[in-house]
Amino acid sequence: MPHDGASQPPDAALLDSLTALTAEALPSVEALLAEAIQSVRGKVVSEGRIAPERLELHQDAAHALAWLATYTEALRRMQAWAERMEQEGTFGEVEALLHQIAFGEYLAQVYGGIPMSQGEIARPADLRLDASPSAAADRLIREGNTPAARARLVELMRERRAEITVGRTGLDDELEMIREQFRRYAVERIETRAHDWHLKDELIPMETVAELADLGVFGLTIPEEHGGLGLSKASMCVVSEELSRGYIGVGSLGTRSEIAAELILGGGTEAQKARWLPAIASGEVLPTAVFTEPDTGSDLGALRTRARRDGDDWRITGAKTWITHAARAGLMTVLARSVEGTDDYRGLSMFLAEKTPGTDETPFPDEGLSGGEIEVLGYRGMKEYTLGFDDFRVSGENLLGEAEGQGFKQLMRTFESARIQTAARAIGVAQSALDTAMSYAEDRRQFGKPLIAFPRVAGKLAMMAVEIMVARQLTYHSARRKDAGDRCDLEAGMAKLLGARVAWAAADNGLQIHGGNGFALEYRASRLLCDARILNIFEGAAEIQAQVIARRLLD
Amino acid sequence: MPHDGASQPPDAALLDSLTALTAEALPSVEALLAEAIQSVRGKVVSEGRIAPERLELHQDAAHALAWLATYTEALRRMQAWAERMEQEGTFGEVEALLHQIAFGEYLAQVYGGIPMSQGEIARPADLRLDASPSAAADRLIREGNTPAARARLVELMRERRAEITVGRTGLDDELEMIREQFRRYAVERIETRAHDWHLKDELIPMETVAELADLGVFGLTIPEEHGGLGLSKASMCVVSEELSRGYIGVGSLGTRSEIAAELILGGGTEAQKARWLPAIASGEVLPTAVFTEPDTGSDLGALRTRARRDGDDWRITGAKTWITHAARAGLMTVLARSVEGTDDYRGLSMFLAEKTPGTDETPFPDEGLSGGEIEVLGYRGMKEYTLGFDDFRVSGENLLGEAEGQGFKQLMRTFESARIQTAARAIGVAQSALDTAMSYAEDRRQFGKPLIAFPRVAGKLAMMAVEIMVARQLTYHSARRKDAGDRCDLEAGMAKLLGARVAWAAADNGLQIHGGNGFALEYRASRLLCDARILNIFEGAAEIQAQVIARRLLD
Ligand SMILES: Cc1cc2nc3c(=O)[nH]c(=O)nc-3n(C[C@H](O)[C@H](O)[C@H](O)COP(=O)(O)OP(=O)(O)OC[C@H]3O[C@@H](n4cnc5c(N)ncnc54)[C@H](O)[C@@H]3O)c2cc1C
Ligand SMILES: Cc1cc2nc3c(=O)[nH]c(=O)nc-3n(C[C@H](O)[C@H](O)[C@H](O)COP(=O)(O)OP(=O)(O)OC[C@H]3O[C@@H](n4cnc5c(N)ncnc54)[C@H](O)[C@@H]3O)c2cc1C
Ligand SMILES: CC(C)(COP(=O)(O)OP(=O)(O)OC[C@H]1O[C@@H](n2cnc3c(N)ncnc32)[C@H](O)[C@@H]1OP(=O)(O)O)[C@@H](O)C(=O)NCCC(=O)NCCS
Ligand SMILES: CC(C)(COP(=O)(O)OP(=O)(O)OC[C@H]1O[C@@H](n2cnc3c(N)ncnc32)[C@H](O)[C@@H]1OP(=O)(O)O)[C@@H](O)C(=O)NCCC(=O)NCCS
Repeated sequence: MPHDGASQPPDAALLDSLTALTAEALPSVEALLAEAIQSVRGKVVSEGRIAPERLELHQDAAHALAWLATYTEALRRMQAWAERMEQEGTFGEVEALLHQIAFGEYLAQVYGGIPMSQGEIARPADLRLDASPSAAADRLIREGNTPAARARLVELMRERRAEITVGRTGLDDELEMIREQFRRYAVERIETRAHDWHLKDELIPMETVAELADLGVFGLTIPEEHGGLGLSKASMCVVSEELSRGYIGVGSLGTRSEIAAELILGGGTEAQKARWLPAIASGEVLPTAVFTEPDTGSDLGALRTRARRDGDDWRITGAKTWITHAARAGLMTVLARSVEGTDDYRGLSMFLAEKTPGTDETPFPDEGLSGGEIEVLGYRGMKEYTLGFDDFRVSGENLLGEAEGQGFKQLMRTFESARIQTAARAIGVAQSALDTAMSYAEDRRQFGKPLIAFPRVAGKLAMMAVEIMVARQLTYHSARRKDAGDRCDLEAGMAKLLGARVAWAAADNGLQIHGGNGFALEYRASRLLCDARILNIFEGAAEIQAQVIARRLLD
Repeated sequence: MPHDGASQPPDAALLDSLTALTAEALPSVEALLAEAIQSVRGKVVSEGRIAPERLELHQDAAHALAWLATYTEALRRMQAWAERMEQEGTFGEVEALLHQIAFGEYLAQVYGGIPMSQGEIARPADLRLDASPSAAADRLIREGNTPAARARLVELMRERRAEITVGRTGLDDELEMIREQFRRYAVERIETRAHDWHLKDELIPMETVAELADLGVFGLTIPEEHGGLGLSKASMCVVSEELSRGYIGVGSLGTRSEIAAELILGGGTEAQKARWLPAIASGEVLPTAVFTEPDTGSDLGALRTRARRDGDDWRITGAKTWITHAARAGLMTVLARSVEGTDDYRGLSMFLAEKTPGTDETPFPDEGLSGGEIEVLGYRGMKEYTLGFDDFRVSGENLLGEAEGQGFKQLMRTFESARIQTAARAIGVAQSALDTAMSYAEDRRQFGKPLIAFPRVAGKLAMMAVEIMVARQLTYHSARRKDAGDRCDLEAGMAKLLGARVAWAAADNGLQIHGGNGFALEYRASRLLCDARILNIFEGAAEIQAQVIARRLLD
């Protein structure tokens, strides 16, 4: 390997008339998607409805379709972003490179194979489609994601390391000011301490929880009339991104507040709203989300924890597991089966069960409730627990909306927000992987130069930056849909599906850039790998997310 | 999702005249490779020699070439395996399915994109090649790796769970008997205990080391005249596979013995052979490999630890790091710079430095030698250390081959064996991921059926089995080349490169099949993820391996 600094001038990195070219390339992908939907419908629809057993038999095709649709939407969002910025005159070189590489790479994957996971690659042929790219798409595949473009992007990233994001996000100034505020907070108060919390497997200090409360994190999207800040889901994304960039545990402190508030806002009575929302918004009450059971994760509708009436009250009995931040919580949103004789989602109800916040010595002080800690690879800081309910009393007024049998749908609507927030957490984790790897690649030298001088190292950094922007645009889009009040499990599912893969790839490549040091517990890269791995599992595993997307597309 | 067990009969899984079809598909890949070599040569060769700065500038193309060559060789090896078994009449349905899916998938990747890592995909267009598959290749791409083929393979895997490998390996009976012996040993003595060693971050008990010594592991490939068993490198592969399937730490106990023995066999004097080989073979002396330094990992030729003459002896001064199993070792193979005024590989010499085996209390009892433990994500059981040499004495006769300035080349030849062995370790880890995920997918039920009934779960298991067989054939091939006495850094590099990616994908997908439980430290899947991650880093990181391969192809 050469030890000198010599390098030839790269080919021209940027294509002429880029946004026109990408605009021209989009229709062929959209046409492919339309064909794909028809093709899969042909396989799985019977008598005008999706036949579940057929959908299952053709799961590979359906999930390939889900990924294709996710890519199509991602490219559409990049195009909308690029055009908006071009109109505003803010589409600079960095943005153009991100856009071009994203199109080049994602188009190449659409036609050549989309990695759903390592080893599972979705191709047009799996959908029995004969796909060939249009001339514009073909040009982008050949000349979009080139070594020259990646090299130039990284050169600019190095020059502009002080900038908070790689390329303008396209969000308005108010949101970018929020970003700056939270970035500053995370740098000062989180980033330097998180690794230690992780290694010691400690709960994030209550001091930090209080700081987040002061910053308004727990009531960000709760309407002002209920004591919150009344901000948009987009602001939740920005805040979640920047806190998760500091530490996924901190970026996740608000998740259960978001879930509880959404449940109550969407399905609660006025009395329930008045009682709980201000306390959640202020951080005075920390909620925990109690859904999963030892035998029931993805198939939540089948859960078996029972709630039975006891006079005016309810008694809950059953086993739950994987309950995050349960010990400290003061409110449990518990999904349980209250309708006798049912075994599907229709018998489930949601309870706003009060709990006495626990201490280290007595994490679960209430009668009828016990718990045990689950040790985990990453995503530490709040701890996960198994919970045992044994005739645990919930008072009558705490049935959400005072309506039985509505719990599952109430929750599914809520999951839309939770998944958008999870997509934003994924972006934060990916960004942290990029930050960490970028600074390591600048500092570490081999063969007489910094690692970042080697194309395989720089290329990894470039792809992280590109995919982060793609995931951002998709996530912001889903947030806007949610703000508009639309059902958006489709969009939220896409953002979550892609974001999780992007974060996992970023953490993986970030570790690789660290070489052996990435494997040392001492280095952040090793933690980021562990933290990133959760994103494909919780809030709907990748396969379930693909299933949700496919069903909405085929409906 | 359907809750009943209904499923339609899959399309015919197997293609007619399969091996003829795959034979027909190979030449187009070989032609593509030949073109690719020409194309990259055109970029990087100047005046008849590789120009290092050009090779670096075109690193992406060179590494894409390395991967293409690895895939081509892998398919060739699969073809040779298939034809041999067909002739012998042992090419059954499982073997045929593995072969067909491997060709289908790897051909699709050759033309559509080979994932070098998550997010780095090598495509013919990156090599400026217009590649279109031949008719035979195209048919395999469309009809090779189908849902029906994967489903049928998994059906057979379920029926034949008692078999030790998925499909016949093609090795002779003697080697398969060795496999059985070591599999039995690993099941009885390793598998049930390894997870505990990992969680407690303990050294593997000396009792286990003694058992391995009794089994002949440390002298497997050392000639009988030197106290070893004189077996082939292929036998080392089988033993490493099965021990690593039990636990990577145990499968790696022999690695440093292999390195030391190879160094001494290849470059040692008769006296050195007589002194060290029998002790290594018997396990009486445990060696440790002391090469890497804090500032020097991939660019080993640049290392700075000094060895200076002191009368008849040598004195070593400098810092080493990442030294596995250093505390217990009795022999250190130390690479150090003995030729004054040099700064490249030509000044390096290899020392057989004696060390007093340490205890828990005093890991480094010798004068002039200190050490500290590095905490790691996985690959535990032997522990890694930083070592400080401070005028550490090595007696004069312990310079390898009594030849100065030969250390680097001595080591590079040795790395061939080490990388073959590492490829075998990777296969073992991948197999363990498959074993674990397969059994979880049988036991865990969601939506009214075992997870294995869902195509996305079964498909992951099928791809693991397929890639394990591909990595096996490539690894056994490199072992045979080594046994034949050929320089085989090309083949060993390919086996290591592919094996590491296969193991990483298997561990990743195996964890995903476990859902949330995969994230719990209690479950093996979480450890396998950590263990698998090392394989892309040590013994030459993936990028370095690709570089080695590319250079040999272009030379
Ligand atoms: C760290 C952590 C924190 C968590 N926090 C919470 C919490 O606070 N509250 C809470 O209620 N839950 C929580 N969970 C649980 C989480 O939501 C579940 O783990 C998740 O929903 C997956 O369920 P499971 O683990 O049972 O996996 P399973 O449902 O058993 O799935 C296992 C695998 O099979 C796949 N699979 C399942 N069904 C199908 C199908 N039909 N087709 C194809 N593939 C399929 C899945 O995608 C997955 O890969 C947490 C989990 C973790 C690990
Ligand atoms: C658990 C563990 C056990 C180990 N055991 C031993 C042992 O027993 N003895 C021993 O001597 N060593 C050992 N090692 C060290 C190991 O061999 C090195 O980590 C490895 O060689 C990589 O070197 P590095 O860590 O310095 O990474 P670096 O060389 O700093 O590389 C960092 C990253 O940059 C990439 N890179 C570097 N140069 C280039 C280039 N020119 N072009 C493109 N990419 C490049 C690398 O591929 C890698 O991704 C061990 C390491 C680990 C983690
Ligand atoms: C798998 C999964 C998607 C649902 O599968 P299912 O049991 O087949 O349920 P369906 O999709 O048929 O939905 C049941 C009903 O809810 C409705 N529904 C689903 N999502 C909805 C949404 N976002 N908004 C409104 N209604 C929704 C459906 O329309 C359906 O109503 P219908 O019967 O009146 O038509 C769901 O169980 C799931 O998300 N699992 C993952 C669990 C998870 O994320 N856990 C995280 C805990 S932190
Ligand atoms: C990067 C790396 C491949 C070598 O790069 P380099 O410094 O450019 O060295 P070269 O490849 O030019 O090799 C130097 C010499 O060794 C020779 N050589 C290299 N590999 C050889 C082999 N397998 N057999 C015989 N000779 C070999 C070369 O031919 C060259 O000799 P020459 O100058 O006489 O032609 C090497 O440093 C390496 O493998 N690094 C990874 C370190 C590692 O695996 N560490 C694990 C520790 S556990």
